[in-house]
Amino acid sequence: MWERNITLPLALTMGDPAGIGPELAWRTWQHLRDSERVFFWIGDPALLGPDLPYRVIRHPSEAVACFSEALPVQEVICPEQVRPGQPSSGNAAAVISSIEQAVRHVLAGDAGAVVTNPIAKHVLAAASFPHPGHTEFLAALCDTVGQEVMMLACPDLRVTLTSIHVSLKQAVETLSAERIMSVSRLTAVALQRDFGIRQPRLAIAGLNPHAGENGMMGEEEIRIIRPAVEALRGEGMTVLGPMPPDTMFSAAARSRYDAAICLYHDQGLIPVKTLDMAGGVNITLGLPIIRTSPDHGTAFDIAVKPGETGQASISSLLSALGMAHNMVRQRAAYDAQAI
Amino acid sequence: MWERNITLPLALTMGDPAGIGPELAWRTWQHLRDSERVFFWIGDPALLGPDLPYRVIRHPSEAVACFSEALPVQEVICPEQVRPGQPSSGNAAAVISSIEQAVRHVLAGDAGAVVTNPIAKHVLAAASFPHPGHTEFLAALCDTVGQEVMMLACPDLRVTLTSIHVSLKQAVETLSAERIMSVSRLTAVALQRDFGIRQPRLAIAGLNPHAGENGMMGEEEIRIIRPAVEALRGEGMTVLGPMPPDTMFSAAARSRYDAAICLYHDQGLIPVKTLDMAGGVNITLGLPIIRTSPDHGTAFDIAVKPGETGQASISSLLSALGMAHNMVRQRAAYDAQAI
Repeated sequence: MWERNITLPLALTMGDPAGIGPELAWRTWQHLRDSERVFFWIGDPALLGPDLPYRVIRHPSEAVACFSEALPVQEVICPEQVRPGQPSSGNAAAVISSIEQAVRHVLAGDAGAVVTNPIAKHVLAAASFPHPGHTEFLAALCDTVGQEVMMLACPDLRVTLTSIHVSLKQAVETLSAERIMSVSRLTAVALQRDFGIRQPRLAIAGLNPHAGENGMMGEEEIRIIRPAVEALRGEGMTVLGPMPPDTMFSAAARSRYDAAICLYHDQGLIPVKTLDMAGGVNITLGLPIIRTSPDHGTAFDIAVKPGETGQASISSLLSALGMAHNMVRQRAAYDAQAI
Repeated sequence: MWERNITLPLALTMGDPAGIGPELAWRTWQHLRDSERVFFWIGDPALLGPDLPYRVIRHPSEAVACFSEALPVQEVICPEQVRPGQPSSGNAAAVISSIEQAVRHVLAGDAGAVVTNPIAKHVLAAASFPHPGHTEFLAALCDTVGQEVMMLACPDLRVTLTSIHVSLKQAVETLSAERIMSVSRLTAVALQRDFGIRQPRLAIAGLNPHAGENGMMGEEEIRIIRPAVEALRGEGMTVLGPMPPDTMFSAAARSRYDAAICLYHDQGLIPVKTLDMAGGVNITLGLPIIRTSPDHGTAFDIAVKPGETGQASISSLLSALGMAHNMVRQRAAYDAQAI
């Protein structure tokens, strides 16, 4: 096992082989090959096209030496012929295996972080994959189920969510002061440890219009959110809120906090994706490993044949790799100081 | 009664006299005095400061002649001394009267539209005002309660809401296909009649993350929203949806529709205020009159003494007046063609 340090390569998963993941992998490698942002791809080399230089590696440690010459690939073979844009649950096991291997390498200290290419939940669900998404699956692999927290980040805004892939009704019904507090604490620790922010400032969203306007439009602010805010302040944290959800994402409001704690999926994702559709990064907090992901889907409609260049933008995957790289460095520095 | 035509002045209400409304009124007049965007203010001249030229008018028809020389004011006197930043329910009756008079003038055909300055609901509520906001009060004055629909518009996005000032829980529980359909029809008519869009394209939001992802995260899309979309298409309307709420406000997605139908307050207001905090305009559809409003509050914290210039931005009120002016013209042209 290596020391956890900045030379550890990042593990990039295959994603759905019929989506844009394979194209993004090799184009991103072309973009980064002369940089220090070394990664290896865990996927099927047949998806890369005939002209791309790649090197099959057996261990992540081999990625650094070859990265400027060839895309390092840890092989996962798709048993079914891959047709771009036509996903098949026959390749679900390979998709899942790629994720499992990436996690194993990071848990073992052989890779710095997991960066995931997009998967299609309905394709995996058809192959009896029981998880609603990457985030929950990664928590299961890391044995930290229920502790996973989704952060979305773009250059102008970071949000974390108290619930992810549940109905809006369920998000409202299951909201609790405990959950707000645990997500806030995790977010504050991540901002310190992985983002280099010594004194994190959190903004906790209200749930209702105008944050309930003193109970006139909903009482969750009075019953749940305000007590959580006050308890967190009692722990010494810098916390704004409950903030009126509609105005808290303006540029002026954003300048007052480092992360927003949002109380349902779209409360956090609407502002991030409205501000920056292409460059957003999905980060999973609450795992022992660092994990980032581009903030887009499989894009089956624009998937191309191996080696062809389509319309897919690599900017979100570049941001995800860059964010993971920075987080690995920040965490190493933070942990070294703590020792 | 005049013919409804483009020379009709707009009626601007006082708003809370302790907020930024009076300052916005005279500064906006200074900005517009040489334009054709004639308005009169229904408020207390004592709030304008000693040096501002104003003219007390008895009827809206007097506003046009004096507008370039003086701010036309229809007097509503505040019985209590106004202290900037310190609202008092002792002046609530004057605030309410200003709104009532504005509506009466437009209903009578003497003014083109009502443009409202911000009020403070809790101040009016303390004086037994039973309405949660302007929108509901205006519907009561126009005898169209329950038909009011809130539209928010900025240069990049128009949204209308199926519910306004209710808790998120209530918005979810009361969502119905009928409501989605009536709001969509009203929105389409407004786009045609008041915005000059012949073939309006609507985008109906999903309620749940990823629009429910085939029922995996909520079933309102299957049970309520999709049937509404299909019924509207059956009526010949151009309707997208149910759309995943987080991605539907990106620039690329916005280019595909003229208005988004949103299923709760913050689903619509978060993207508008994230995109354009200063220039948003609030428009009430479903009334017999045209009504717009700036998209900000009373801002008691930056209210200044009569005649003083503070930090308040006039841009949203300018947008509201400009939008009302354009809507009056579009509606007159549309109605003339229809006859």
